[in-house]
Amino acid sequence: MTTTRPDPGSHLGRPHPFDTDTAVRAGVDGLVTASVTDRWNGLGGTANGGYMLALALNALRREIDHPVPLAVSAFFLRPGVAGPATVDTEVVRAGRRTATGQVCLVQSGKEVVRATATFGDLDGTGVSHTTAAVPDLPPPEFCLDPLAGVGVAGVTLLEQVEYRMPQLPGFVVGSPTGTPEWEFWMRLAGRDADTVALPMLVDAAPPAILDLGETSSNTVELTVHVRARPAPGWLACRASTRHVADGFHDEDFEIFDSTGTLVAQSRQIAILA
Amino acid sequence: MTTTRPDPGSHLGRPHPFDTDTAVRAGVDGLVTASVTDRWNGLGGTANGGYMLALALNALRREIDHPVPLAVSAFFLRPGVAGPATVDTEVVRAGRRTATGQVCLVQSGKEVVRATATFGDLDGTGVSHTTAAVPDLPPPEFCLDPLAGVGVAGVTLLEQVEYRMPQLPGFVVGSPTGTPEWEFWMRLAGRDADTVALPMLVDAAPPAILDLGETSSNTVELTVHVRARPAPGWLACRASTRHVADGFHDEDFEIFDSTGTLVAQSRQIAILA
Repeated sequence: MTTTRPDPGSHLGRPHPFDTDTAVRAGVDGLVTASVTDRWNGLGGTANGGYMLALALNALRREIDHPVPLAVSAFFLRPGVAGPATVDTEVVRAGRRTATGQVCLVQSGKEVVRATATFGDLDGTGVSHTTAAVPDLPPPEFCLDPLAGVGVAGVTLLEQVEYRMPQLPGFVVGSPTGTPEWEFWMRLAGRDADTVALPMLVDAAPPAILDLGETSSNTVELTVHVRARPAPGWLACRASTRHVADGFHDEDFEIFDSTGTLVAQSRQIAILA
Repeated sequence: MTTTRPDPGSHLGRPHPFDTDTAVRAGVDGLVTASVTDRWNGLGGTANGGYMLALALNALRREIDHPVPLAVSAFFLRPGVAGPATVDTEVVRAGRRTATGQVCLVQSGKEVVRATATFGDLDGTGVSHTTAAVPDLPPPEFCLDPLAGVGVAGVTLLEQVEYRMPQLPGFVVGSPTGTPEWEFWMRLAGRDADTVALPMLVDAAPPAILDLGETSSNTVELTVHVRARPAPGWLACRASTRHVADGFHDEDFEIFDSTGTLVAQSRQIAILA
């Protein structure tokens, strides 16, 4: 039996695509550059927003002494495409407990993403209150792989992320349910998530509006709050759209790690395409 | 019988404090300045974050052709205090349907608030999907005024905003309920809310964590999404904290107008003080 994808942890010292594709280079002139690769494309042949955000945060982290992006807000200004980019960073305020910076991802002289982020640390002093309920999912091995034997042409992101679902979403089988809320498992293929991967992963699933019969939307703004360092393994996710009005929709996304801890919560607002 | 507060609409042509206190002035040198007033203070004698955000957005709106702040993210870097401020604005991208800008509020040479916002318009083409449930509240006239006959020394914000609650929150009567979720009515005293007042109002109620027995926190980041233009009248609000971990807490805030339409949703992440 052969498998086409490595298990997490099996990269055996080779850099993982998430790490190589979010790497940045500082030139002697101080200019920081990066390559947006074509391995994280969503629909339409453009780079996934969460991927570009992770790349931008990776650049900003080099300038900041705190490791965890606690609060991130990204504005998506133009589509990003595979190719070179420059990354402009600014440390806005460096404090003892937190530090805030801003980063702009620029392609062909035009700003594609502008993100602001406050970094800090999470020392695991624990949860003192929560009503965040872990998605009620069968174990991943009892779930379906929605991509088993299929792909979506050009959506290379689906080769980097794995999903396990209790049943196929309505839109996949041609019957949108009308209820834009999904719970499922997700992980990076071949790499455990860390606190920099989480801002990518909250944007790495198909939008819940597909189950409203909508076909696509463009993110205007995405806020991510990282609440804990994720344990290794599959991540239990919940995506939901609560309100669609005037051509705009929200999408909330929550990620719980394999121990049931809430590790990230996000909300984005997007324009229906 | 005398009333100490004017009813909304009764300002009779006099500018309302919200308008005068969020006004900005452009100098001949191009420098935009403002006065942070002491009429919007929270606990600790510092200016309410939502008020400073509204002031900053007011400055940014002057540079942008679209009227409604659809998506706003503000990072609170230092406490703001009554006194002069400069307001630096930047138009990041001006498009046909939306435009994005950034604004920094600076006091004594130090950045206090940095906000990024995408503006657009809401033409009232309606709600095509929602699971956002209007708070189940008795009419305002059957609710309690939690500030009737009382005040909180120095918290001048409470003189600008009116609240009506079905019962007094636990913390007010010395018995935090342990459930950080409140539903209540709110309005600016003497002025109907518009889409620029909403980003202030989402931050204008006491934090829900008070009902966990916590005493205060400092906002790191606040995201506001304006979803509709509010109708005149009282606003039905829901504030809730879902997750407290590692000394950080979220707070979600929703505002529905007097017709039951969701007009704003926000989330902030804050550090327990």
